[in-house]
Amino acid sequence: MSFDALRSPVQFLQQAGIRADQDWLRDYEAWFECEGQGISEAVDRAGTPWLRMFDRFGARVDEILYPPEYWRMLKNGYRAGVLWRVFERNFERNSERNSEGNSAQNSLIPAYLLLYATGFYDPGLACPYTVSLSTVCPLSKYGDAELKARFLPRMLQRNDNDNDDESVWQGATWMTEIKGGSDLGTAVETIAQQDGNKWRLTGDKYFASNAGAELAVVAARQEGAPQNVRGLSLYLVPRHREGGKLNYQIRRLKDKIATRSVPTGEIELRHSEGWLLGQAEQGIYLILEVLNLSRVANSVGSVALAQRAIADAYSYAERRTAFGKPVIEHPLLRRQFEDRLQGLRAALGLAWEAVRLLDNVWQEKPPYSESYHLFRLVAHLAKYWTAEFAVQTAKWAMEVYGGVGTLQENRVERWLREAMILAIWEGTSHRQMLDGLEVMQRKNAHRLLFQHLAGKAPEAQLREMEARVERQLGLPEADKEATLEKLFSGLASFTADTLLGKPGDKE
Amino acid sequence: MSFDALRSPVQFLQQAGIRADQDWLRDYEAWFECEGQGISEAVDRAGTPWLRMFDRFGARVDEILYPPEYWRMLKNGYRAGVLWRVFERNFERNSERNSEGNSAQNSLIPAYLLLYATGFYDPGLACPYTVSLSTVCPLSKYGDAELKARFLPRMLQRNDNDNDDESVWQGATWMTEIKGGSDLGTAVETIAQQDGNKWRLTGDKYFASNAGAELAVVAARQEGAPQNVRGLSLYLVPRHREGGKLNYQIRRLKDKIATRSVPTGEIELRHSEGWLLGQAEQGIYLILEVLNLSRVANSVGSVALAQRAIADAYSYAERRTAFGKPVIEHPLLRRQFEDRLQGLRAALGLAWEAVRLLDNVWQEKPPYSESYHLFRLVAHLAKYWTAEFAVQTAKWAMEVYGGVGTLQENRVERWLREAMILAIWEGTSHRQMLDGLEVMQRKNAHRLLFQHLAGKAPEAQLREMEARVERQLGLPEADKEATLEKLFSGLASFTADTLLGKPGDKE
Amino acid sequence: MSFDALRSPVQFLQQAGIRADQDWLRDYEAWFECEGQGISEAVDRAGTPWLRMFDRFGARVDEILYPPEYWRMLKNGYRAGVLWRVFERNFERNSERNSEGNSAQNSLIPAYLLLYATGFYDPGLACPYTVSLSTVCPLSKYGDAELKARFLPRMLQRNDNDNDDESVWQGATWMTEIKGGSDLGTAVETIAQQDGNKWRLTGDKYFASNAGAELAVVAARQEGAPQNVRGLSLYLVPRHREGGKLNYQIRRLKDKIATRSVPTGEIELRHSEGWLLGQAEQGIYLILEVLNLSRVANSVGSVALAQRAIADAYSYAERRTAFGKPVIEHPLLRRQFEDRLQGLRAALGLAWEAVRLLDNVWQEKPPYSESYHLFRLVAHLAKYWTAEFAVQTAKWAMEVYGGVGTLQENRVERWLREAMILAIWEGTSHRQMLDGLEVMQRKNAHRLLFQHLAGKAPEAQLREMEARVERQLGLPEADKEATLEKLFSGLASFTADTLLGKPGDKE
Amino acid sequence: MSFDALRSPVQFLQQAGIRADQDWLRDYEAWFECEGQGISEAVDRAGTPWLRMFDRFGARVDEILYPPEYWRMLKNGYRAGVLWRVFERNFERNSERNSEGNSAQNSLIPAYLLLYATGFYDPGLACPYTVSLSTVCPLSKYGDAELKARFLPRMLQRNDNDNDDESVWQGATWMTEIKGGSDLGTAVETIAQQDGNKWRLTGDKYFASNAGAELAVVAARQEGAPQNVRGLSLYLVPRHREGGKLNYQIRRLKDKIATRSVPTGEIELRHSEGWLLGQAEQGIYLILEVLNLSRVANSVGSVALAQRAIADAYSYAERRTAFGKPVIEHPLLRRQFEDRLQGLRAALGLAWEAVRLLDNVWQEKPPYSESYHLFRLVAHLAKYWTAEFAVQTAKWAMEVYGGVGTLQENRVERWLREAMILAIWEGTSHRQMLDGLEVMQRKNAHRLLFQHLAGKAPEAQLREMEARVERQLGLPEADKEATLEKLFSGLASFTADTLLGKPGDKE
Repeated sequence: MSFDALRSPVQFLQQAGIRADQDWLRDYEAWFECEGQGISEAVDRAGTPWLRMFDRFGARVDEILYPPEYWRMLKNGYRAGVLWRVFERNFERNSERNSEGNSAQNSLIPAYLLLYATGFYDPGLACPYTVSLSTVCPLSKYGDAELKARFLPRMLQRNDNDNDDESVWQGATWMTEIKGGSDLGTAVETIAQQDGNKWRLTGDKYFASNAGAELAVVAARQEGAPQNVRGLSLYLVPRHREGGKLNYQIRRLKDKIATRSVPTGEIELRHSEGWLLGQAEQGIYLILEVLNLSRVANSVGSVALAQRAIADAYSYAERRTAFGKPVIEHPLLRRQFEDRLQGLRAALGLAWEAVRLLDNVWQEKPPYSESYHLFRLVAHLAKYWTAEFAVQTAKWAMEVYGGVGTLQENRVERWLREAMILAIWEGTSHRQMLDGLEVMQRKNAHRLLFQHLAGKAPEAQLREMEARVERQLGLPEADKEATLEKLFSGLASFTADTLLGKPGDKE
Repeated sequence: MSFDALRSPVQFLQQAGIRADQDWLRDYEAWFECEGQGISEAVDRAGTPWLRMFDRFGARVDEILYPPEYWRMLKNGYRAGVLWRVFERNFERNSERNSEGNSAQNSLIPAYLLLYATGFYDPGLACPYTVSLSTVCPLSKYGDAELKARFLPRMLQRNDNDNDDESVWQGATWMTEIKGGSDLGTAVETIAQQDGNKWRLTGDKYFASNAGAELAVVAARQEGAPQNVRGLSLYLVPRHREGGKLNYQIRRLKDKIATRSVPTGEIELRHSEGWLLGQAEQGIYLILEVLNLSRVANSVGSVALAQRAIADAYSYAERRTAFGKPVIEHPLLRRQFEDRLQGLRAALGLAWEAVRLLDNVWQEKPPYSESYHLFRLVAHLAKYWTAEFAVQTAKWAMEVYGGVGTLQENRVERWLREAMILAIWEGTSHRQMLDGLEVMQRKNAHRLLFQHLAGKAPEAQLREMEARVERQLGLPEADKEATLEKLFSGLASFTADTLLGKPGDKE
Repeated sequence: MSFDALRSPVQFLQQAGIRADQDWLRDYEAWFECEGQGISEAVDRAGTPWLRMFDRFGARVDEILYPPEYWRMLKNGYRAGVLWRVFERNFERNSERNSEGNSAQNSLIPAYLLLYATGFYDPGLACPYTVSLSTVCPLSKYGDAELKARFLPRMLQRNDNDNDDESVWQGATWMTEIKGGSDLGTAVETIAQQDGNKWRLTGDKYFASNAGAELAVVAARQEGAPQNVRGLSLYLVPRHREGGKLNYQIRRLKDKIATRSVPTGEIELRHSEGWLLGQAEQGIYLILEVLNLSRVANSVGSVALAQRAIADAYSYAERRTAFGKPVIEHPLLRRQFEDRLQGLRAALGLAWEAVRLLDNVWQEKPPYSESYHLFRLVAHLAKYWTAEFAVQTAKWAMEVYGGVGTLQENRVERWLREAMILAIWEGTSHRQMLDGLEVMQRKNAHRLLFQHLAGKAPEAQLREMEARVERQLGLPEADKEATLEKLFSGLASFTADTLLGKPGDKE
Repeated sequence: MSFDALRSPVQFLQQAGIRADQDWLRDYEAWFECEGQGISEAVDRAGTPWLRMFDRFGARVDEILYPPEYWRMLKNGYRAGVLWRVFERNFERNSERNSEGNSAQNSLIPAYLLLYATGFYDPGLACPYTVSLSTVCPLSKYGDAELKARFLPRMLQRNDNDNDDESVWQGATWMTEIKGGSDLGTAVETIAQQDGNKWRLTGDKYFASNAGAELAVVAARQEGAPQNVRGLSLYLVPRHREGGKLNYQIRRLKDKIATRSVPTGEIELRHSEGWLLGQAEQGIYLILEVLNLSRVANSVGSVALAQRAIADAYSYAERRTAFGKPVIEHPLLRRQFEDRLQGLRAALGLAWEAVRLLDNVWQEKPPYSESYHLFRLVAHLAKYWTAEFAVQTAKWAMEVYGGVGTLQENRVERWLREAMILAIWEGTSHRQMLDGLEVMQRKNAHRLLFQHLAGKAPEAQLREMEARVERQLGLPEADKEATLEKLFSGLASFTADTLLGKPGDKE
């Protein structure tokens, strides 16, 4: 097994049977190798960017002060097409997914290819792209003609120019408030009041990624709506009001341990203009659709990060010598590399399956098909499994470096910081397990999964795994949750190995 | 099972059957609760301290500029007795280890009790204490009367005074050079040349903990000595030459991800004065004896850190609510807490067994007894197992916090940074496994271990585990190493559970 | 002329004929020499402190995270009596100002002595003391019995305890808003609405020194009050509401170039509870009385800083050699030192005259006596002159150091940063000149000044200077201001030299 | 008088009668307006760059880690021609200095034009260009054919490419050691030992600007040479030895208060390869020739900085309002602006006279002409006067901003930090005065100056000023120096005003 492909996201995707030899993708990778990488390191080193709240004359401006090259790096992805390629109808899906032959449709695949490549070089940078995607998708699905005419072209334009007012608008997805992200039904206290055909939103968003975005989708509760998850609805909120004033304020940027290439802030909405997306009663579905996109992006990014960590560790182990030979030639370490690579391929298989399933269902609206429920289970398994793999891999890569791995200057510690954020964002492992449990209980998604895997593993293994799941579902409520971890982890591992064609390979 | 004891290192040790109710230990803990904790956080927040190389008149001074309160915190541990209590003959060992009855001897126990308490509050701060201990021990064992008369009183004095030239001297242990720490036989390039009854050392130490210490033990190679591990010898090197000049220079302090309360630097030895400890030919044994002390300290610190991380996570989970109740009441999370606590107790058992065994053998000189070899195996198992436990626990604690866990302001991310250093210092997992393998192969230490555990686990389990080990030892060389991880991890887990009285409890 | 006294603020004050040999003052100085100095440097090095806005459970807390030793340093001044000594009736004024014999009265002298000593060691730290003084004074003058009973004891207590809820309350004076501090009549947009016997304040304070203080005096405009300086009134605003909730929020701390030992922030008042001080219509007078206290403190601090800069430069010049001798022995530099010392003594004389005059009038209420108007002119001259002297002296001290003076590590650059803030706070030179002009025009304060100086300079000189002033006052409006700088600077210099007993000594 | 030209260095130079309308200069300015300015601010905000001493494998590399865009900014100036244009023979000097008609010669004018523009946008960045110029000039004058063939093309190439090994080599001028820069004869302890046709240098350079440069000129003392200024000689020292190894080490970078766009470090020379420039006995002359170039650059940069500070203050004063109108319309402030602008024009006249005189004499070798001595006096006057003007102007600009001027975010405080470095580098005011005195005493340079000024001021004024100088020169030694400041300052001011055509305009 060769480790050479590890150095290139494009090559590794190709080796895994995912088409990734498009020129634009290669160019994107080449740009990072040559320029972007150095910028990304400088941004990580510089730490949390600085928020200019007021100009020197006392006018509130809320500008985020990155070094100029940050913006160059950021815009490069939009230019490469992380948004516009999704809506480019003539994208040749055939060559990508010829088994299905549904050419000439919008496809998320180009976006996730770019996100994978981005995640390899800068895991945090994948975030602005993802939340922009998660803004443009609901806008295109649920926005009325006027909204789309007004905002879509700004987000989808191709020829961004650095010094131009015509630059791409970024999106953002602001759901979480100070009470936390898992129990949204209770935690969202932002209120929406009708104001003609607009709405006025008032509330505080506590973890607002891509603070400063030109357009955000925001969860809020209409006055009088129930105090639970059914009371939520989704709004489109631009950075500036129609008259040009700031429509929301950034209270501060947060000092995170990583993902310094995305500004995460606290947002104060105060009678901020917004437009309702879809029907108010269906808000929670729209919110979950938004989370689908980012949860899958999180999985893809986790795998990309793990690839990067292994690649870095490998290049180190090739050159570092001990006891007379490169440490890569020591049997214990070599075996660990082989196991990691195997694990990486399984993780990629699982994450990409989530991408493919999502690409089939992302344009559905409620009520959803069975494919949608299958997707949800796979997405939970993938988010859970890949994030865990990324953390453990990053930790291990630091150990391969040994002492120099604990120094900030050697960059490898960055992957662990970044991985920890991936493990927590979009729901921790607890959330994935419990939501995965719910979709199995309420939609029998596990049965859909075993149908989906049929033929890819020996029948007996599939049956045995299915029985394990059914046993778990049959436990008394508290036990069912208390002992869920082993089952969920087993199911994720089984699914990943099966998709890779090696079920039961572990042990 | 109660979690309350988690909030106090003293109480948790007591619950685990380790005597820790001495007044001085309670006072030490109380000081940290009231004062030290705030200082420790401020030091971690401030990042790497600054090295003043020159005074304003251009004289080289190499002072490390911590805030004044750092020094207050540091000296508090010396005052509490992390060094002097070890050499206080009237320490009542009986009450601690009444089965052995060897009262009125020097004992390391007080030192490791203080290190545990320190590690709970500031994992990095345990390092200066440990390396000071690792300096004073070889000095007391191998130094001649003159050296001891000259240096011991400075390190063992009880009444340190902040603003006094009479303050305690710190120690340091500088072995590692730029080529790395695992293959010392090759990597040490520092040369010692005789100069009357002194030696002159020239070379660069790359990872020098407690840079700036008044007295260091330093590994070097005498001119003409073999280019392997047998060619190494150990020297005592003070900060100032006899005339008062600096005896070594600090090239720079290193930007580590954690343990900011110990200054780690690069040391330039240039004809630096040193005194040979013991016989030159036995240098490697002396070096390993030094490492024994710090490896056990690393294990003890890892457990203390894990206790802290669980305690913090618990106090969070008690108060954070979701879905209408504190998250600690959610079955999945509660189960994880119970499992963590169980794991913590096993880890403490293993680490403290290493402490007890070391306390029996630390005064031995080569050739060593079987007890020494048993100790070495247990020390490798403990270092490996506890560091891994600390990392996984710190990671998990961040996940319990969820989003706020990724923010620098909430402190929980610090435990992961600190834990990663514990996993790498004193040898990564690879080193522990391979050195553990060696002591089993060459000294049959595994058999000594199974004798030691006899009666604490069912005979059949002991036999089965022993057979697994023997099978591994019988494999061809490359395979033996390549597949070592599972065996070693299994042996560590088995030993820990057995010592806790719950062998085979897992699964 | 001896430079030795420069090293001690107490000694220098004594030499200048200001009684400063009280034990408590000597103790305060000694504490700084021994402990405070190191803390002050660490705080300056650490930069802007960090504001913890929320605790980990999402509750707004707005705590300012300094290292613990900062608080030790801060509280030391309160303990020494920077507030309570002012209100200690038995302070022996006689020995200080025996010409007046009004013993057994409140006196500001002890406060300004402590401020001088503080300013020598940490110019920024003098700020929290000053604004606390500027809070307690109007409270004691204008507060009703209930307010005084409630708040005064908290601010005046003597035995502050570090870890005690009984710790001293700090004050703050928040006037300035985003539109600036000079034209308060226009710039204050904070509104006060009556609410029973309390008021509710809403607005943003942009430069709020000592953000986080337990009690602030705040300028606001009552609803319907005129949009000019007459519409302002002054309120007492505590940190917590009666129920214990935060009464104001800190939007952020500001990154200033210096005075890092005072947290300056932006304050958001939102229906914040406040109590009116004095009569609403007289608010502007109360505000100006508050500014009197801080303007004089600024003068005293400027002189202390200049003393420090000269002392540091001197200690450097004594030991740095060039061309075979200490640089202090080079004629050009020695002459500069002598001139600086002379200038320092004149600046101290002017600043302390402002202190003495203020001590006579600070308990007056409107309408004011002539003594009050004389004080105001002297205060403007002193603020202008001493700040300019501090800046020029700090700049010169850096040049004495030469190259090493540009390095952050050598501390001398700090004095320039601090001095620049002194030159800007409490009104820039422009403000002092124009306000000084006004008090001359409207109150003939210059005539009061020349009466005051009578006998201290040759009559002819006094007459000539007075004629110059009158000529200026007779110019057409625009010219009068445009050419004011030379006159004002001349008047300040003349006054300072006259008070020193050396009028016309320059040139 | 219009302030509009202040916003553009090119325009302001043109207004002052200095030809600056070349396309390449306009392009250079336009690049800074559009791109460079943002980069410069980001670099200043980021603080001292980080020195990577070792790569992750332990090889010493001594790389300076700036963000990538720093290098883009830096290279832009080399590309614009700050070096190569000086040696481009077909530069049309006629249009620049038609009175002399010596076309087709090398001229420094293009370099100083670019330095002026650079200094307006980033005062620190002018330093690498200056020291590179100060390296290439002695190399071209004193290097033998082989040295020139080897090194000149690397420094003078026109088409630098970012990602190319063909990038321009930078120069550096390392004279100063830890004992200081003024008394070089004593302070230089670096020793040069002959080694074939090369030399080996050993010593430490303490203030080494542009640490990391590919080629440095270094002051050293040959073994056995006298312990005074005559014992110094000048060497060319490349970054890499002939075999590719590092030829010097960077001990650390220094934390300066400003000029963060030039890395200033401490350099360790250890048997470093060097080539002697010129004759050893004439070394001190070569060193002084190097300093001539940078002293004039310092003057030009000081004026550019002052222009910038006034321009920023003006743009602020135009928009900030108080008392109902923009503050620029307040008579006192407006007068200050007018005076500043007048002062700026005089300072530019003096600095540019130094440029013109230098351009006439820079190719001279000892023994020098009278023109050279005249140049030296004017250079001392210009360095002294312009740096003082820059500091006072930057201070004043902060005061114009008022409170917001003390905040790091508003950039204006940067100009004061930068100006303070200009006041100290290349010799403080003391050095300029004493060296100016020497050239008057030993070379009668003042008489040359008055001849030079003849016809530009009324004869009587010239005579009076000359008499003042002669009186000073006639004083006893100690008095002559002690009272020098007033004379020197008067002479500088007189010269500047005369060159501007307004002698005696002040008062």
